[in-house]
Amino acid sequence: MTENEDLPFESRALSRLERQLSFITEVDKLKQVLRQTSLLDGSRRENDAEHSWHLSLMALVLVEYAAAEIDLLRVLTMLLIHDVVEVDTGDTLIYDESNAVARVSSERRAAERIFGMLPPDQAHELRRLWDEFEARESNDAKFARALDRLQPLLQNHRNRGGTWRQFGITAEQILAKNSIIGDGAPLLRDLAVNLIEDSRRRGYLAPSATESPQ
Amino acid sequence: MTENEDLPFESRALSRLERQLSFITEVDKLKQVLRQTSLLDGSRRENDAEHSWHLSLMALVLVEYAAAEIDLLRVLTMLLIHDVVEVDTGDTLIYDESNAVARVSSERRAAERIFGMLPPDQAHELRRLWDEFEARESNDAKFARALDRLQPLLQNHRNRGGTWRQFGITAEQILAKNSIIGDGAPLLRDLAVNLIEDSRRRGYLAPSATESPQ
Repeated sequence: MTENEDLPFESRALSRLERQLSFITEVDKLKQVLRQTSLLDGSRRENDAEHSWHLSLMALVLVEYAAAEIDLLRVLTMLLIHDVVEVDTGDTLIYDESNAVARVSSERRAAERIFGMLPPDQAHELRRLWDEFEARESNDAKFARALDRLQPLLQNHRNRGGTWRQFGITAEQILAKNSIIGDGAPLLRDLAVNLIEDSRRRGYLAPSATESPQ
Repeated sequence: MTENEDLPFESRALSRLERQLSFITEVDKLKQVLRQTSLLDGSRRENDAEHSWHLSLMALVLVEYAAAEIDLLRVLTMLLIHDVVEVDTGDTLIYDESNAVARVSSERRAAERIFGMLPPDQAHELRRLWDEFEARESNDAKFARALDRLQPLLQNHRNRGGTWRQFGITAEQILAKNSIIGDGAPLLRDLAVNLIEDSRRRGYLAPSATESPQ
């Protein structure tokens, strides 16, 4: 399965390990990619590595709320790798739709480059899971994506509006963006709606078009 | 299995979710617990959340080197939770043996408190896996612990000695502390020995007792 099957076993194993170590080294950069949202105590912005760890832990603890039977190992794998493309592309606010098409294409190039550092069999397997997460069609991907949407809600609610307040986001925008939580985990969608309603009541959110500004 | 089985289902579910959210919120603090070692580019110290994510990703990529057949889902679960006790105890240098007994007992108290925030069935399950990781007897724990030892070697080698140089650690001390890598992943132990030998050659390490200081 490796590209150098004609080499003696030891050289083959070493070359394979070297590729794996290159990947492990490269993704260390995710610890420097800052997200828009902040830690729950509001002290600083979160980075992609911390975010990926927190989502994985959430998957362990919240797996019983998945809408359908899921494979937790596949969900964890998706969550651990879902943001590695941001080593190349950086993070963007999900409410910014201005360059969505260009973003998809640059993320795909990044996936090609970064997963491509691995031995071909592993590159293929992880890339396939990354594509599956992006496509959000399988039950595993739906649950993983639900968690990826839920976590910033917990952060922004805790941080008195956080990026919602910073960028003037309305309850309607948040509800629209987060409806996908319901596809992966209906009870967590109820939780999300409660957090959004509570944020509106507390004045963390921009007035919607149908409300008169205060 | 929950402690309030006499409540109507909805109240029971809510209370269960509240406990799960408390745990998810509490462990956010791991993003603020700094380790001794630095990111691979040396720019700053790593925190426990980033470290846990990186180990989990290493487990995905390096699973073929496990000494025995392992259950990757159990290994990932251990790695994701292995440091949560440091929310209470902080991180210590593994070469500091000065208060090892007190440390074990404070970590157990922390495990009791932090896993105890979860619903009892989950608290029990995660605590059992945390104990298994600490005991390092099962194949899953041996592999997980091997990765936990390997990662700082990669960091210190890359950072021209890093904490080894900072604290005057010798090659013999590092080799002794890292012999457990071989129990979980023999080929990764060979890698570790190569990194240590290379660090010695490059002058990153303190001279051993049998060497005359330069």
